[in-house]
Amino acid sequence: MQAEIITIGDEILIGQVVDTNSTFIAKALNKIGVSVYQITSIQDDKAHILKAIEEAENNADIIIITGGLGPTKDDITKTTIAEYFDDVLVSDAGVLKNIESLWEKYIKQSLSQVNIDQALVPSKADVLMNYFGSAPGMWLEKKNKVFVSLPGVPFEMKALINDAVIPRLQEQFELPFIMHKTLLVYGIGESNLADRIESWEVSLPNFVKLAYLPSLGKVRLRLSAKGKDKKTIVSEINKQINLLLPQIEDVFVGYEEDGALEELIGKQLVALGKTLATAESCTGGKIAERITSNSGASAYFKGSLVSYATQAKIEVLEIDKTLIDKYSVVSIEVAEEMAAKVRKLFKTDYAIATTGNAGPTKGDADVEVGTVCIAIATPTKVYAQEFKFGNHRIKVINKAVNKAFEMLQKEIFKN
Amino acid sequence: MQAEIITIGDEILIGQVVDTNSTFIAKALNKIGVSVYQITSIQDDKAHILKAIEEAENNADIIIITGGLGPTKDDITKTTIAEYFDDVLVSDAGVLKNIESLWEKYIKQSLSQVNIDQALVPSKADVLMNYFGSAPGMWLEKKNKVFVSLPGVPFEMKALINDAVIPRLQEQFELPFIMHKTLLVYGIGESNLADRIESWEVSLPNFVKLAYLPSLGKVRLRLSAKGKDKKTIVSEINKQINLLLPQIEDVFVGYEEDGALEELIGKQLVALGKTLATAESCTGGKIAERITSNSGASAYFKGSLVSYATQAKIEVLEIDKTLIDKYSVVSIEVAEEMAAKVRKLFKTDYAIATTGNAGPTKGDADVEVGTVCIAIATPTKVYAQEFKFGNHRIKVINKAVNKAFEMLQKEIFKN
Repeated sequence: MQAEIITIGDEILIGQVVDTNSTFIAKALNKIGVSVYQITSIQDDKAHILKAIEEAENNADIIIITGGLGPTKDDITKTTIAEYFDDVLVSDAGVLKNIESLWEKYIKQSLSQVNIDQALVPSKADVLMNYFGSAPGMWLEKKNKVFVSLPGVPFEMKALINDAVIPRLQEQFELPFIMHKTLLVYGIGESNLADRIESWEVSLPNFVKLAYLPSLGKVRLRLSAKGKDKKTIVSEINKQINLLLPQIEDVFVGYEEDGALEELIGKQLVALGKTLATAESCTGGKIAERITSNSGASAYFKGSLVSYATQAKIEVLEIDKTLIDKYSVVSIEVAEEMAAKVRKLFKTDYAIATTGNAGPTKGDADVEVGTVCIAIATPTKVYAQEFKFGNHRIKVINKAVNKAFEMLQKEIFKN
Repeated sequence: MQAEIITIGDEILIGQVVDTNSTFIAKALNKIGVSVYQITSIQDDKAHILKAIEEAENNADIIIITGGLGPTKDDITKTTIAEYFDDVLVSDAGVLKNIESLWEKYIKQSLSQVNIDQALVPSKADVLMNYFGSAPGMWLEKKNKVFVSLPGVPFEMKALINDAVIPRLQEQFELPFIMHKTLLVYGIGESNLADRIESWEVSLPNFVKLAYLPSLGKVRLRLSAKGKDKKTIVSEINKQINLLLPQIEDVFVGYEEDGALEELIGKQLVALGKTLATAESCTGGKIAERITSNSGASAYFKGSLVSYATQAKIEVLEIDKTLIDKYSVVSIEVAEEMAAKVRKLFKTDYAIATTGNAGPTKGDADVEVGTVCIAIATPTKVYAQEFKFGNHRIKVINKAVNKAFEMLQKEIFKN
């Protein structure tokens, strides 16, 4: 079974919006054994929509369309879909009732004509009820091919994919098993890694695919396989990973499927019954933000002191001004002191501290742009390292965050 | 001039990676008057790459291909492009020299064969030198159509687009003028907004397009026009905005082209010579992170106290425990006290505080999931509001961050 995803919206084609919907849908389809052949982003334009649906019908068995279903005048998807299926739009009583109840509960205003028109659907479509918004999902079929149209608002689309589209696809089709396992590797470049594991890689069986996904100080190594026999696939992937692991022991930090590195750290801290705080300068709260975007973080994360200004380091975090004057605000010594101080302040077992200059200008510090010192404090010691992360601001911040997690991970997985 | 962007990589089609490259390229092309007809994400597969390039050649004048140029074995783009142009790969001396100098400077190891092979390019291609990585960009032409192949690593691709592709397109073609102006509107829904501005919208001239882009408590309203005469376009868009503004005065916060709301806030604080600190609970550092991802934030942002645990609110931020016991940790009263305390702690003019429960479980607080109290402290007063942001964790966090910026913006633009 092959799928194609079509996202409709000029905002994607002018670069105003990143298409995260396709990513979500592709992942959900993959999980149930449906491969995505292609993702196509097109304009809010009738001729283009018709052309894209027709081409997708030639390439794929399942066509998922998102976007272009809002109440305002820039949306033309629904009438175009009706035309493609040689159909007319009719008002659906269930959808209208859903819209009325949403308006009564949240909007507390009477329905306008544009809201009432949201209940119009092609007469041949099965309605997929959207409980979070006024635009319904639609399921249509033609010569054993499935066409699904969904609203583009991400959380509405996601609920419809999870609650309506995926269950119905699983019910209606016999789907193969797809497995991906992605190893997170920190602190080695793509080509070095490739050289190191070459002999293992060339002897992989044909049905197991390997991909390298490098980014900002880490490489994700993805093994994929697809087939009817789940048992064979699982055992082959596991066998290959067992052959690989001894070769990358020093740089392997975990599996992406178990969550990002900060999630693995969270789970380990919970397992150890230990807690964490951070003192962040150049990372500006991003370490805390990455940690707290995971539910359950309150079990181990106590808080962060984002001491962005040097003055805040001295007055709020109580770093000795003479230490800063002696070594510079971006230094191993100040980073270590920040980690030690924030660990005491929040009364935690572990602490991370960052101080650096993300650029583009030198700011409070007189060090080279891209210089970052990262410290880890544990119940028994404090240590820091200095890094040069280049001169791209956002890249420097993200590399520092990744490196901080890598350093903490090495510490807590020793236990 | 129409362009098509092709991104190559199984990682996009299995939903492992969000395609942000296309967004960047689309934006850059738009700025110089090149419309993007379509974005197509395809597999690392020879037949599929050939098919996509052929179709793109039918649709567009400029075809930009990213991805599939890394040193490892999962990349086949380069040989496929050579085949499409009926060409052979030859080693480029300049590229090889660039790779050697990168290895000498950063990798400090001798070149392996895979690295040397990175210098292979189709003989008909003009090399676009990649100073940040080993995979070169390539520029090919066929019947007045331009084909550009770029590495998929975002910062390498971005440098090549900005420094090589865009300047050469501008030199080689006479391009029209494209203008987008996007109004940021907070605190009103899409349909209500559409109703309110309907008479203005229907009287827009034909060549001005309007789009509604709703997300998490805000709507972006985009006006677009394209043509040969820059003066007509600029004056018409400005005229329409002047007609619109009085109708949305209460909900308009600024223009997206001037930066996100946090950037507008930053500029205003700098203009006023005022400073800001934040005390964050449920937003977990995200407000600080959004502020500090902008360069120059150190001029007005002093820091943040991320008091994630209730204990940290009491011990680090020194919120009176009896206040928390009396009103609950998620309450107007505690939010106000957090804002006042953090303003004093960091000695700033303004402060933002958040306390809430982002879910999925109730955590330290006994309030309903999605409840967030946001407070603003100014030199003369402190006030807070309570919000219900639903039950989706990431959505609750982002809505709270947007709402906090909206509240602060109202305060500082009064001055």
